Amino acid sequence: MGKPCIICVAITGSVPGKADNPAVPVTITEQIESTQAAFEAGASIAHCHVRDDDARPTSDPDRFARLKEGLETHCPGMVIQFSTGGRSGSGRERGGMLPLRPDMASLTVGSNNFPTRVYENSPDLVDWLASEMIAHDVLPEIEAFDLGHIVQAARMAQDGRLRRPLYVQFVMGVRNAMPADERIFDFYIETLERLAPDALWCAAGIGPAQIVLNEWAISRGGHTRT
Amino acid sequence: MGKPCIICVAITGSVPGKADNPAVPVTITEQIESTQAAFEAGASIAHCHVRDDDARPTSDPDRFARLKEGLETHCPGMVIQFSTGGRSGSGRERGGMLPLRPDMASLTVGSNNFPTRVYENSPDLVDWLASEMIAHDVLPEIEAFDLGHIVQAARMAQDGRLRRPLYVQFVMGVRNAMPADERIFDFYIETLERLAPDALWCAAGIGPAQIVLNEWAISRGGHTRT
Ligand SMILES: [Zn+2]
Ligand SMILES: [Zn+2]
Ligand SMILES: [Zn+2]
Ligand SMILES: [Zn+2]
Repeated sequence: MGKPCIICVAITGSVPGKADNPAVPVTITEQIESTQAAFEAGASIAHCHVRDDDARPTSDPDRFARLKEGLETHCPGMVIQFSTGGRSGSGRERGGMLPLRPDMASLTVGSNNFPTRVYENSPDLVDWLASEMIAHDVLPEIEAFDLGHIVQAARMAQDGRLRRPLYVQFVMGVRNAMPADERIFDFYIETLERLAPDALWCAAGIGPAQIVLNEWAISRGGHTRT
Repeated sequence: MGKPCIICVAITGSVPGKADNPAVPVTITEQIESTQAAFEAGASIAHCHVRDDDARPTSDPDRFARLKEGLETHCPGMVIQFSTGGRSGSGRERGGMLPLRPDMASLTVGSNNFPTRVYENSPDLVDWLASEMIAHDVLPEIEAFDLGHIVQAARMAQDGRLRRPLYVQFVMGVRNAMPADERIFDFYIETLERLAPDALWCAAGIGPAQIVLNEWAISRGGHTRT
């Protein structure tokens, strides 16, 4: 048997709502239930976003705290990963929940375009989020939306701004960012192995790219994300 | 003899001033003199930024018009390329000189980090600049600061937002963006040839990366930039 594949479950995400799919869990209670089902089915990392009372993305630390408490009770041993992604807040607000010391948090170390806007991660903000993760002993999952993000993460691991080994997620299929491209996917792996040989990696495809990326990741020995 | 190498001269750039180097040409007269010297030495494209009376970057169309007129007189046949880069203005201001119909203009089709800030090129702005270039018959030079920018340019050429063949410049050596990395340089070429087989390319290294990138570009049959 080969090494086990880690399945990371993103139960809610930052964008979809009940209007897109009534099954999307948006309240804390729904999120805990849905994560428990995934945990029992074999998922070992919960990638968490929270929503406000109107189901809009928020970075509210109180909500993250309640979600974390519920997950610890109902999914004992599951790795809890909070999102610091840009849809739920701006600037340092995005890292306001890091003092809760989740096991992991997402971190994007560069900027890129999203379907209708710039995904802004200024050098200052990136360095601050990285330092907060070190201070609160949170393992970052680097969300790589382009090749330069992989290179930047390796550089930050080398100069001590990120702890080693790196855990990097290749994200493909976001419009106006990197599409699902198998040759590029393989070059991502090659580049990460060259610049950060001890790094682990996983992959996430957005929308129709999800199943494609899962297949590529599993066939190359990487970890996956729902 | 192989195919000729096009030398593009960036006489001023967007950042340096007289304090960095007293030889940097910042007035229109200085720029015309300096470009003429480069033209007589063999350069065939002039990459142009303009400065205001305090030598700060500006997108002022009047200054671009005066520079263009001077270059047409003193460097007959030289290809004139205006910068639409983000340091000299924000939003559509950056393309305000395109109705002057320079031969070429720079265009970045995605966002990325620069040393101390986000280089913002929102999808809307990119599409608008591209449409202005088509309207005024300006050939874009795509400034690729990351792999995703090459992929996006190829997509835009395929769906008609950019004319073909593409002319792409690989930019390396900007802090917090892509460093000078030879394996990645070769992958840039491979990816461009795969996704846009008719494209031409050149390369620009920033600071100490300049001479390195020139050597890589020349050895692979690309064009260069000072
Ligand atoms: Zn997320
Ligand atoms: Zn993951
Ligand atoms: Zn320039
Ligand atoms: Zn060039």
